[in-house]
Amino acid sequence: MSKEITSREQDYSQWYNDLIIKGGLADYSAVRGCMVIKPYGFALWENMRDVLDKMFKDTGHQNAYFPLFIPKSFLSKEAAHIEGFAKECAVVTHYRLKTDPDGGGLIVDPDAKLEEELIIRPTSETIIWNTYKTWIQSYRDLPLLINQWANVVRWEMRTRLFLRTAEFLWQEGHTAHATANEAIAETRQMLDIYAEFAESWMAMPVIKGVKSINERFAGAVDTYCIEALMQDGKALQAGTSHFLGQNFAKAFDVKFSDKENKLDYVWATSWGVSTRLIGALVMAHSDDDGLVLPPKLAPIQVVIVPIFKGDDQKQLIDEKVRAFVKELKQAGVKVKYDDNENNRPGWKFAEYEMKGVPLRIAIGARDIANNVVEVVRRDTKEKMSMPIEGLTVNIIKLLDTIQESIYNKAFAYRSTHITPADTWEEFMDLLDNKGGFVSAHWDGTPETEDKIKELSKATIRCIPLNNVEEAGSCILTGNNSTERVLFARAY
Amino acid sequence: MSKEITSREQDYSQWYNDLIIKGGLADYSAVRGCMVIKPYGFALWENMRDVLDKMFKDTGHQNAYFPLFIPKSFLSKEAAHIEGFAKECAVVTHYRLKTDPDGGGLIVDPDAKLEEELIIRPTSETIIWNTYKTWIQSYRDLPLLINQWANVVRWEMRTRLFLRTAEFLWQEGHTAHATANEAIAETRQMLDIYAEFAESWMAMPVIKGVKSINERFAGAVDTYCIEALMQDGKALQAGTSHFLGQNFAKAFDVKFSDKENKLDYVWATSWGVSTRLIGALVMAHSDDDGLVLPPKLAPIQVVIVPIFKGDDQKQLIDEKVRAFVKELKQAGVKVKYDDNENNRPGWKFAEYEMKGVPLRIAIGARDIANNVVEVVRRDTKEKMSMPIEGLTVNIIKLLDTIQESIYNKAFAYRSTHITPADTWEEFMDLLDNKGGFVSAHWDGTPETEDKIKELSKATIRCIPLNNVEEAGSCILTGNNSTERVLFARAY
Repeated sequence: MSKEITSREQDYSQWYNDLIIKGGLADYSAVRGCMVIKPYGFALWENMRDVLDKMFKDTGHQNAYFPLFIPKSFLSKEAAHIEGFAKECAVVTHYRLKTDPDGGGLIVDPDAKLEEELIIRPTSETIIWNTYKTWIQSYRDLPLLINQWANVVRWEMRTRLFLRTAEFLWQEGHTAHATANEAIAETRQMLDIYAEFAESWMAMPVIKGVKSINERFAGAVDTYCIEALMQDGKALQAGTSHFLGQNFAKAFDVKFSDKENKLDYVWATSWGVSTRLIGALVMAHSDDDGLVLPPKLAPIQVVIVPIFKGDDQKQLIDEKVRAFVKELKQAGVKVKYDDNENNRPGWKFAEYEMKGVPLRIAIGARDIANNVVEVVRRDTKEKMSMPIEGLTVNIIKLLDTIQESIYNKAFAYRSTHITPADTWEEFMDLLDNKGGFVSAHWDGTPETEDKIKELSKATIRCIPLNNVEEAGSCILTGNNSTERVLFARAY
Repeated sequence: MSKEITSREQDYSQWYNDLIIKGGLADYSAVRGCMVIKPYGFALWENMRDVLDKMFKDTGHQNAYFPLFIPKSFLSKEAAHIEGFAKECAVVTHYRLKTDPDGGGLIVDPDAKLEEELIIRPTSETIIWNTYKTWIQSYRDLPLLINQWANVVRWEMRTRLFLRTAEFLWQEGHTAHATANEAIAETRQMLDIYAEFAESWMAMPVIKGVKSINERFAGAVDTYCIEALMQDGKALQAGTSHFLGQNFAKAFDVKFSDKENKLDYVWATSWGVSTRLIGALVMAHSDDDGLVLPPKLAPIQVVIVPIFKGDDQKQLIDEKVRAFVKELKQAGVKVKYDDNENNRPGWKFAEYEMKGVPLRIAIGARDIANNVVEVVRRDTKEKMSMPIEGLTVNIIKLLDTIQESIYNKAFAYRSTHITPADTWEEFMDLLDNKGGFVSAHWDGTPETEDKIKELSKATIRCIPLNNVEEAGSCILTGNNSTERVLFARAY
């Protein structure tokens, strides 16, 4: 079974695709650039969504739902915004099909042309701020803290399962505030929530930072981000939180009267993470035998495989298993007893290894006699015998250990992959031969950033929030610089 | 406050719109026929979704996600299906915008025309069955029990908030089976789940039945439905479950090999409920003062309003309330303490009445002295004094009572609104002057059904599952009939 997966060494990109397809997370679809999220992948997304949703609600946000369609004219209202999205818009122009009178089958009915074309939302700032205009009059209506779980469409030319698809699922928070400071605090709070989620739940260390002008969200004053590192040394932007200033309030004329009855434009934020996180999760931890999922998000945390000959042994095992499965479930452990007789134990072992189930329990007749089970960790492959007595407590401990352990492994990898470079040669050598983040001086201009990108295919991933000032000279131009920034080739 | 709502007597349709808008459930949007679901409305939908989702999972279904877009050619593959949906399709024809070189602003880029147009899914049978083709080979892959929560678009010309919108949210189950019987059993099981949800959670009695040919889902062999009755005597289809036979398997060539290695087409079902249920919920129970929500689905079950003069009294109340709010929350009651000082108690009373919060607790300084609170039921307006001692238990009991009570009220209304008619005059008189379901004989032909619809604006809502055979003659043609069916004017 494991032979079917291309190794990372051999072809990292194919390894990734193999994991997604053979791990049962997603499938290609008949529609260019769109994927089908399969039940196992969707269960993973549901777990991620539920945790994030609770974090949002615990910080006072409410969910709502806005239209899929955005009138073309709305997109144009914020100049930078339309500049950023015009080239990848799916456009609805008609609202009816009809049978071709000339026998050409089913055609678009030319009489059903929309007066104004509708864009499938690539993000919802414009339709939402157009609505906020009617919801916000006074400081009493602020802050307005709203999140939406939705599908969005960006017509990407080169797509990859989860990482970049024409349609994807995400959440987008859109908040409105009375002051710039409150909006900035919200932007930073949501960045912290994303980082907390990435590290504590996905077991994926991230660097919190702010984007350079070139990499800013179209329409934002500042874009904050969390950046993760994949096993091939490439960076991946895992979430963004934008301080939008008064840009959208001005574009859609959203003003509020403050306590002194003075009118001012509202301050805004928006922030989002998407199904792209699944791609990040897969690449952060998995190995050449398949997925490695963090226990806190795994759809199945423990799989139990019976090993038996004949019905008598099976009955004995069933009975034993039933008792401890019940206890595990009561303790909140997501456990699956796979006694499907169509497949042999060896096939199941490989299958659940492929699917990244954190713990596998095998139980045979001899184990019953000794009152033990065999437990195997997915991450380390470590095999151990465990008494059935006290199994639940030990399984829970072990799941915690795995969660910590895969985080530590990823953290160790990242720690050795943030490397300073002081010359252009060092910089290129690191990118070509080591990978990871390269910490280097840059003169702060968009032009230099463009030039570096052109020459090296690396972009500024972020200016870390915890950066220290340091005088230096730009890696490319030699001009003065006051701090290092993190470069990397990225997904 | 309550004066702002149009009464049912005065204008039922306007009453409904007032409730939706002023109750904070939804808003019109800038996009024709699309609505914005506001946080309070969305919280209601989340509660409904979570209950249904658990019911689906408890019966072995898994969630997945399929593309928003359907290639035009897919829709045409099942003849009846395309016939049913062609006239209301939103069509994507282009994938890019650009700046008009002639200065006309932002235009659709003519160079970015899709080779094949994409339809925004009005329902997903076609894209899903095209995928199932690759997922199903053997009887071992069956049954395949999948559900999807998604947005869909049907370009309706006359729209109404929640009841009929161009875009709406729903779930659509799509299952594949080895035999017709298994598929029929699944269809019926899901109908039972919908009925159970409507009655036990929405407190809305429904009639389970099967649709006539005219009202069948486009592509189904049989459409089962649950039909509810609104307060104006009109019926509302609240959910449908379709037995699709082998229609889609044939259209998309989905075959499986059975245990004897014989190839056969797969048998299918699909079933769905949508945000339309919110419209049904609103109309089933609400009154001229606002929404009446069933406690089991209400986003806020209990609201507490403090009544005080000065900070000392406020502090005393806060302290008391904090204690019993904690206890209520621990018991799983959704409670809100509204001590917002911008609004007066009277305003709050009207506001939560409007929003249909099942129980309102008011507490003032004198109540504290007597160790009681004032409790008011939203459904009956009944006011009672309740000791703080044991409050949680009594509140929970009262919420159960309200749930039962509004169900009983709706049930009593419906019971008196299923009326037999044996002549055309009786039939028309009932429809015009009493409303509700009219139980009448019909000769079983689509032509007669069309004619009746044309003359009376009533349709066959369903042939009830528990129907008894009874010889009679058709209300319109006088031809022979073997059973009565339920007619009504409907939403």
